[in-house]
Amino acid sequence: MFEVIGERINTSRKLVQAAVAERNFDYIIDDVKKQQEAGATYIDVNAGARIGHETDDMRWLLDTIQPIATVPLSLDSPDPAVLEMAFKMVEKTPMINSISLEKERFNAMMPFLKGKECRVIALCMDDSGMPASADDILDRAVTLVGELNKIGIPTAFIYVDPLVQPISTDSNKGVMVLDAVRAIKTAFPEVHITGGLSNISYGLPQRKIINRTFVSLMMDAGMDSAIIDPLDQKIMATIKTADMLLGQDDYCMNYLKGVRSRAIES
Amino acid sequence: MFEVIGERINTSRKLVQAAVAERNFDYIIDDVKKQQEAGATYIDVNAGARIGHETDDMRWLLDTIQPIATVPLSLDSPDPAVLEMAFKMVEKTPMINSISLEKERFNAMMPFLKGKECRVIALCMDDSGMPASADDILDRAVTLVGELNKIGIPTAFIYVDPLVQPISTDSNKGVMVLDAVRAIKTAFPEVHITGGLSNISYGLPQRKIINRTFVSLMMDAGMDSAIIDPLDQKIMATIKTADMLLGQDDYCMNYLKGVRSRAIES
Repeated sequence: MFEVIGERINTSRKLVQAAVAERNFDYIIDDVKKQQEAGATYIDVNAGARIGHETDDMRWLLDTIQPIATVPLSLDSPDPAVLEMAFKMVEKTPMINSISLEKERFNAMMPFLKGKECRVIALCMDDSGMPASADDILDRAVTLVGELNKIGIPTAFIYVDPLVQPISTDSNKGVMVLDAVRAIKTAFPEVHITGGLSNISYGLPQRKIINRTFVSLMMDAGMDSAIIDPLDQKIMATIKTADMLLGQDDYCMNYLKGVRSRAIES
Repeated sequence: MFEVIGERINTSRKLVQAAVAERNFDYIIDDVKKQQEAGATYIDVNAGARIGHETDDMRWLLDTIQPIATVPLSLDSPDPAVLEMAFKMVEKTPMINSISLEKERFNAMMPFLKGKECRVIALCMDDSGMPASADDILDRAVTLVGELNKIGIPTAFIYVDPLVQPISTDSNKGVMVLDAVRAIKTAFPEVHITGGLSNISYGLPQRKIINRTFVSLMMDAGMDSAIIDPLDQKIMATIKTADMLLGQDDYCMNYLKGVRSRAIES
C-alpha cells in the first residue's frame, strides 16, 4: 500500500509557525488528527523555521503530537543534534528526513544514522545541484543505498527521493524522473521511492491537475510513497484509485471504503 | 500527440438514434462540431442500432457530417457491405472500426481491407472470448499485425485494442493490460494502441475518476489513442496533462492552450 508522509506540521507554514510560537496545543493536535483520518501513514515534523528555537520547538511538537499519533513520525531536520534528541523521544520506529550527497549534510548525517533503527529519506542531491539525467539520478541512488547499507540501514528502510524537477523548464523532466524511478526499482527491488510532487508543476497554471496526474505516472513507475498534504482530497483520491488500478487493492476494498466515506468522488 | 476517436455519433445512443430517425441534420452537425472543438482527431460513425436501416443511416450520416468534418472519420460497422459503401464516400483516409480474430468477423473483414488505404482498429478478441493474460493479449496482437501486414496494411496504420477488462472482477486486470501494452509496443514500436477505457471501472461507483486515472497509466505504457467522449472535459484535461508529463508537449504549449480555453482546470 502507498505510504503518505503528511507534510503539514512544518513551521515554514504560517499558521503552524504561529501555533508553535503560541504553544497552541489544540491547533497542532487537530491538524495531526485530520492528517491521520485522511490517510497519512507518517506525520512529518519540521521545526526548522524559527531560528534559534528548533530544539525547543521540536521537543514541544513531539510532546504534543506523540500521545495522539497512531502512525510513526518523520523527523525532519538537517541538524543531527535535533534529530538525536527527537530520536530518543519517539516511540515508533521513525522516518528520518533526510540525508543527501551534499558533503556537509552527508558528513553530519552518517554518524547520526549509523546503527540506528530508522527509515531514511535519501535525496538524490549533491553539491553540484539537481541531477541532470535519469542515469545521474540512478548513480546517486546507487551511491546513497551503498553508503547507507554500510552503516547498517537495510535497503527496505531506504526511501530514495529522485527529486522531481519542473516540466516548465524542460519538457523531458517528467520522462527523466519516471525512467530513473524504473531504473532504481530494477537495481533495488526492495527500496522505496518517495518525494514531493509539486515541483513538477512549478511555473505552470492549474498546478493541482498536473501534480495528481503525475503521481499516478510515478506510482506506475514504482513510487510507493510521497511527501504530500493528505488534506488535498483530490490527490489522495487519485492515489487510492491508482493503487487499485496497479493491483494493490484486493477486491477494491480501499477504493470502495474511500467512496463510502466520500473521500473519492468523480 | 494523443489521438482521440470521438465516440458520440453512435445510434445506440438514444438522442443520436432519434436524430438519425428524424434526419435531424442540425443535431448531428452540432454534435460533430462540438467533438472537433473539444479535440477529437477522428469522428467515429456507427449506424448499427436501427436494424434494417444501417446502410441508409450511414449514408445519410456521412452526407451530413462530411461537409463540416475537419478531421477524418472512423467507419464503425462489422458489415463489409456498409463499410464498402462508406469507404467510397469518404474524402480523408478513414479509420476502420474494426477487425478481430473472431472467425466470422475476421473472414468478412480481410477481403474488404485487402489493398485499401486505411487505418484499422484491431481488437484482441477471438472466438474463445476476452484474453486471459498479458501474454494472451500480446499473442493476439502479433497475429493481427501479421495478418494485416500480409494484406498490405502497414504496422503504423494498425491501432491495436488490447480490450480493457473490469478491475472489479480481478484486481490484476489493470496490471495485465498495462503489461500487455508495454509488450506490444516493444514488439512493434510503430503500432498504435487504442480502445475504450470505461470497461476498467465497470461495476464500481464513481467511475469517471477510475477512467481518467487509468488513461494516464495506459498512456505511460504506450497507449496513444482512445475511443472516448471528447466532451468529457475531465478526461480530456487528464489526457492533455499526461501528454505534457510524458514529454509529448514542447514548451507545454498544448497544456497552456487548454488552460487558456478553460478546457483544463485543477
